[in-house]
Amino acid sequence: MLPRGRPRAMGAAVLLLLLLLVVGFFLFGRDPDYGLGTTATLDEDPYRSRNLSASSPQLLLPPKCEVMLHVAIVCAGYNSSREIITLTKSLLFYRKNPLHLHLITDAVARNILETLFRTWMVPAVVVSFYDAEELKAGRTLRSCSARPTFFFLSAPLVSWIPNKHYSGLYGLMKLVLPSILPPSLARVIVLDTDVTFSSDIVELWALFDHFSDKQVVGLVENQSDWYLGNLWKNHRPWPALGRGFNTGVILLWLDRLQQTGWEQMWKVTAKRELLTLMATSLADQDIFNAVIKEHPHLVHPLPCVWNVQLSDHTRAERCYLEAADLKVIHWNSPKKLRVKNKHAEFFRNLHLTFLGYDGKLLRRELFGCPNQFPPGAEQLQQALTQLDEEEPCFEFRQQQLTVHRVHITFLPHQPPPPQPHDVTLVAQLSMDRLQMLEALCRHWPGPMSLALYLTDEEAQQFLHFVETSPVLSMRKDVAYHVVYRDGPLYPVNQLRNVALAQALTPYVFLSDIDFLPAYSLYDYLRASIEQLELDSRRKTALVVPAFETLHYRFSFPNSKAELLTLLDAGSLHTFRYHEWPQGHSSTDYSRWREAQAPYSVQWSADYEPYVVVPRDCPRYDPRFVGFGWNKVAHIIELDAQEYEFLVLPEAFSIHLPHAPSLDISRFRSSPTYRNCLQALKEEFHQDLSRRYGSAALKYLTALQQARSRA
Amino acid sequence: MLPRGRPRAMGAAVLLLLLLLVVGFFLFGRDPDYGLGTTATLDEDPYRSRNLSASSPQLLLPPKCEVMLHVAIVCAGYNSSREIITLTKSLLFYRKNPLHLHLITDAVARNILETLFRTWMVPAVVVSFYDAEELKAGRTLRSCSARPTFFFLSAPLVSWIPNKHYSGLYGLMKLVLPSILPPSLARVIVLDTDVTFSSDIVELWALFDHFSDKQVVGLVENQSDWYLGNLWKNHRPWPALGRGFNTGVILLWLDRLQQTGWEQMWKVTAKRELLTLMATSLADQDIFNAVIKEHPHLVHPLPCVWNVQLSDHTRAERCYLEAADLKVIHWNSPKKLRVKNKHAEFFRNLHLTFLGYDGKLLRRELFGCPNQFPPGAEQLQQALTQLDEEEPCFEFRQQQLTVHRVHITFLPHQPPPPQPHDVTLVAQLSMDRLQMLEALCRHWPGPMSLALYLTDEEAQQFLHFVETSPVLSMRKDVAYHVVYRDGPLYPVNQLRNVALAQALTPYVFLSDIDFLPAYSLYDYLRASIEQLELDSRRKTALVVPAFETLHYRFSFPNSKAELLTLLDAGSLHTFRYHEWPQGHSSTDYSRWREAQAPYSVQWSADYEPYVVVPRDCPRYDPRFVGFGWNKVAHIIELDAQEYEFLVLPEAFSIHLPHAPSLDISRFRSSPTYRNCLQALKEEFHQDLSRRYGSAALKYLTALQQARSRA
Repeated sequence: MLPRGRPRAMGAAVLLLLLLLVVGFFLFGRDPDYGLGTTATLDEDPYRSRNLSASSPQLLLPPKCEVMLHVAIVCAGYNSSREIITLTKSLLFYRKNPLHLHLITDAVARNILETLFRTWMVPAVVVSFYDAEELKAGRTLRSCSARPTFFFLSAPLVSWIPNKHYSGLYGLMKLVLPSILPPSLARVIVLDTDVTFSSDIVELWALFDHFSDKQVVGLVENQSDWYLGNLWKNHRPWPALGRGFNTGVILLWLDRLQQTGWEQMWKVTAKRELLTLMATSLADQDIFNAVIKEHPHLVHPLPCVWNVQLSDHTRAERCYLEAADLKVIHWNSPKKLRVKNKHAEFFRNLHLTFLGYDGKLLRRELFGCPNQFPPGAEQLQQALTQLDEEEPCFEFRQQQLTVHRVHITFLPHQPPPPQPHDVTLVAQLSMDRLQMLEALCRHWPGPMSLALYLTDEEAQQFLHFVETSPVLSMRKDVAYHVVYRDGPLYPVNQLRNVALAQALTPYVFLSDIDFLPAYSLYDYLRASIEQLELDSRRKTALVVPAFETLHYRFSFPNSKAELLTLLDAGSLHTFRYHEWPQGHSSTDYSRWREAQAPYSVQWSADYEPYVVVPRDCPRYDPRFVGFGWNKVAHIIELDAQEYEFLVLPEAFSIHLPHAPSLDISRFRSSPTYRNCLQALKEEFHQDLSRRYGSAALKYLTALQQARSRA
Repeated sequence: MLPRGRPRAMGAAVLLLLLLLVVGFFLFGRDPDYGLGTTATLDEDPYRSRNLSASSPQLLLPPKCEVMLHVAIVCAGYNSSREIITLTKSLLFYRKNPLHLHLITDAVARNILETLFRTWMVPAVVVSFYDAEELKAGRTLRSCSARPTFFFLSAPLVSWIPNKHYSGLYGLMKLVLPSILPPSLARVIVLDTDVTFSSDIVELWALFDHFSDKQVVGLVENQSDWYLGNLWKNHRPWPALGRGFNTGVILLWLDRLQQTGWEQMWKVTAKRELLTLMATSLADQDIFNAVIKEHPHLVHPLPCVWNVQLSDHTRAERCYLEAADLKVIHWNSPKKLRVKNKHAEFFRNLHLTFLGYDGKLLRRELFGCPNQFPPGAEQLQQALTQLDEEEPCFEFRQQQLTVHRVHITFLPHQPPPPQPHDVTLVAQLSMDRLQMLEALCRHWPGPMSLALYLTDEEAQQFLHFVETSPVLSMRKDVAYHVVYRDGPLYPVNQLRNVALAQALTPYVFLSDIDFLPAYSLYDYLRASIEQLELDSRRKTALVVPAFETLHYRFSFPNSKAELLTLLDAGSLHTFRYHEWPQGHSSTDYSRWREAQAPYSVQWSADYEPYVVVPRDCPRYDPRFVGFGWNKVAHIIELDAQEYEFLVLPEAFSIHLPHAPSLDISRFRSSPTYRNCLQALKEEFHQDLSRRYGSAALKYLTALQQARSRA
């Protein structure tokens, strides 16, 4: 039953493995974290050698760890990137073998998924990326010398195929996988992004052993009547064997496909059919079916449970009512989760299980599988286990070491067009501040980059919140970056750094979520940057004076004059005037009242103004978690790097009232918490002295004075 | 391999089934929802008749739906009740067959778990309760005529056995299960509460078929060296075969146990060993092992993966490093999740999966299994599917129909001693108000009943929050009831009703979480109730006047005099004076300033004071979900039932500032939301007219006047 020539292929695989290692470096050299975990042992497959009879109904599973399972998925855009994560969670939940994901993506999905997988740090998972846009356009990658030829053997043009399916051209990309994936890869499971696993994928992989010599493609029969035709007048589907096959789940025997001349075969069929049918309706699926109709010996039919299709007019019920097990659910209706199905609730629940599943729980190792840790994970694990649980600041130490999963641009986003004076508002929040977003959008018409600290479940609530808000769903210039919760302390500065790193304009306004900027602030800041002839090399921090109101309902001032009236009437105060005046005293509010032009101010102890700075400004110090001193340290860093603080005479923003956060409550009630914060401050100053030498002396002096006063 | 006499046993089972139905009614007649789902088809087991050879290594699983799997668990107290829920979630997640849970509980666990399972509404799950306290005391239940004798055949005394294990006497109860469980029940799986499943329990059930004729107990070998002895000087364990067996997971062949004279057997052995050993160290496990040492033919050893024991000095690693699958994890160390184990992180993640798993997702049916819905569930499902998703108030309708899972007394609780004038503070909150709890505890030294609206994950965060707060962990008179989140609108009145139903004192103070009562309020209320000679039959609502501050940090007044000073200084206001004066105008604050004695006030439109009423007061109307009118409707109900409103001259409570809730933000920004609320009001008034006739006219008039003003 084994394909002839296997030993030779195995030898070639070893050689290719070495090549891949070298080439991987060039391909992804800029980002050393392109893949996770161990080196991929491409298709070293002991299971294959056990010579199982394909006629045996018995399913022998390969031993754990020893087989690397390969999965290819085409994924483009923001929404598919969210889908693929849910699919991946369901895969990881049940799997007991190492996985190699081959992701064919556009630039958007690649950006999102590279960050996600790098920060997810799942052991025994390797991820490789392939550029879908180049494939779509059909540039022959042989000519692109920076990329290895054998990664993209004769990548064909798919954009010549007219297609009416909602998946667009990306759907067609499954046809060219045999040419895209490394030739060393003998077999691969191809999945649509809209499937959910409810079993171990190794059971699906084991079905390769049921293939006869001639079979190259494993598919589940289509569960709708589409290919039978006559669904409506002039309904003319592509030709198919019986009710045809569905391509949401495919077992592809790649090396055999190459041998049978697959590329030529599907092109000939597609071109011929397109003469009469004009376009594909169901993308790649039409072409797969037309080829199979002509060459039925190529297909190995799979049990229906491996692709239970929940489209509107489905016969899926026949499948799952008889089966004890559902293996893979396929949401192959454009309505997705809202599909009408008698048992929709059941299937939704399976899907929601992984939608809300805490992804960090999947960072579990596979026992007995060697060398499975992604780069850095093992060292991190060691550092974490070396912490002393009895030490009073243990929670702080643990939180600082935590690597949070990060899903950048969680929702569709249109990056702002490049403009030399543009400013992005940068802030972070958790679930309890969602209700600020609409007001913020009304006050700031420009781009925003917001980090949200959420559980996986909350991320779904957030999605619903945005989708049902007319104000928020309209705004495509707000980028939301989800940082997944892990640990008891709010990692405020890590969140700020994520939002800051994703800002795309030359300048950023470093704000907080409880502040509403003056309606005119966005325009005013851009005008000021232009007038002051700032450029991003000049180290200037424009100060936006901060005020606060204590009233729930409050009529926001339309001008500086109105603001001053409210201030004099006692309806407004300068920010934290009663509790923490040193935080903003350097801004010099009395000078600001009269000022007509920007004026320069000097740093003083505990200064923490809200500032506009070039995007490449210093990052926030991530050691400050929870409440306290997180902005102060950043302003010190700016001052140490000789940024000039320039207060803008017409700029202001106003803090709205809210209940104290859990962290501030703990700060107030726990002496340990306050002691730990003090320890962090001292460590920060030691680092500062190390980096800036005697120039950092003034900060230390200020700290010591504060301590002697306390 | 089949036990002889099976056909007779089957006939008996059918007869017993009928008897059980009748008897179940008597046993649980007071609470018709004692069990969930379909009628239990006790042990009708088609799988059993398939005559599998026990020597066959092949595991044939019974067809889905056809076998009812029986599981017995001993559970006592608050903490075990939380544990058993996590265990149950893991069971339900993987199961594909109907389940019958036999829970041997104390009164505390029964109270919690009956509510939980009734509101959980999982299809194809039956729950039966057995009274552990009676068993422990050893009362012979034959004499208790209200209970069926065959449910408690010769329930033996276990309290005579001296036991040093942390599980206390409850651990020993596993020995008497053959006498407790219905004789119709041939086989049962017995589980400790501290196990987590990571596979389908039907695979464990299938191992009964590997038993030889003589074997009656299936057990996994112990994975510690305990029974080998000599762990320390004078370490003398009970006798055991080799390293002995662990009793965290037991397959019990009940009818065979009865036949072999199990009861006599273990008692003889236990009494003999106790002559020299004085007490059991590991509860039932010591006795099981001593019996097996004497009668080794009784035990069927199970594969180690079915009870991977994570105690401190465990050999479990040998088991799971070799196995591809872990089936059941057993946290059998007193340290539980904090056990030191090289792979602790892995196991913790498996456990946390179900700790944080959204239990409502387990409300999924088993396909092809007939008649599996718990009482009411099918009708509810129909009502939900009949809602029109396009209707503007769909979300409101859906939220009103939602049955939330309820976990009463989530944390250990000491009910207050019965006192005729005692008052419980009743309130509800979600995660964003946790930080109010400590302050509330300082202001209210009396009993509280609080409903918390949380996800399963948040419930764990809440647990951690209470455990790490010195103020909260001290207070055992605060009962926390978790209502699990489901749906987009805050079910405020359903939450209030849960908290109200669990209040145990004759009076309740119906408050809100953002209010802090005067320090003296608890004492003052009790004194007032006594002085006014109220009794719970007199319909009086004592009004506690409400104030508000807009300041984060605020020095709480120690007396009415201090409060009046703050009020005059403008640091305090009467509650919602600016936004919603009609809510409290009837309280008549100017009269209150001068009042020396309680005074009576009349209802007026939109009145919503905070009141102290007898515990049996009318419930809140659950149709009001989200923001608006939820308290107003309750006060109307009190007025319609002719409660007298009596303002207390020295009582007050003060509202602290917080950001507007999501619901109030939606109310303000969405005309649809406001229209839906208006529709709810009108329906409420129609019901009111129906119930109170012309007496309800004044409320309708007030509503119409308000509408004409709007």
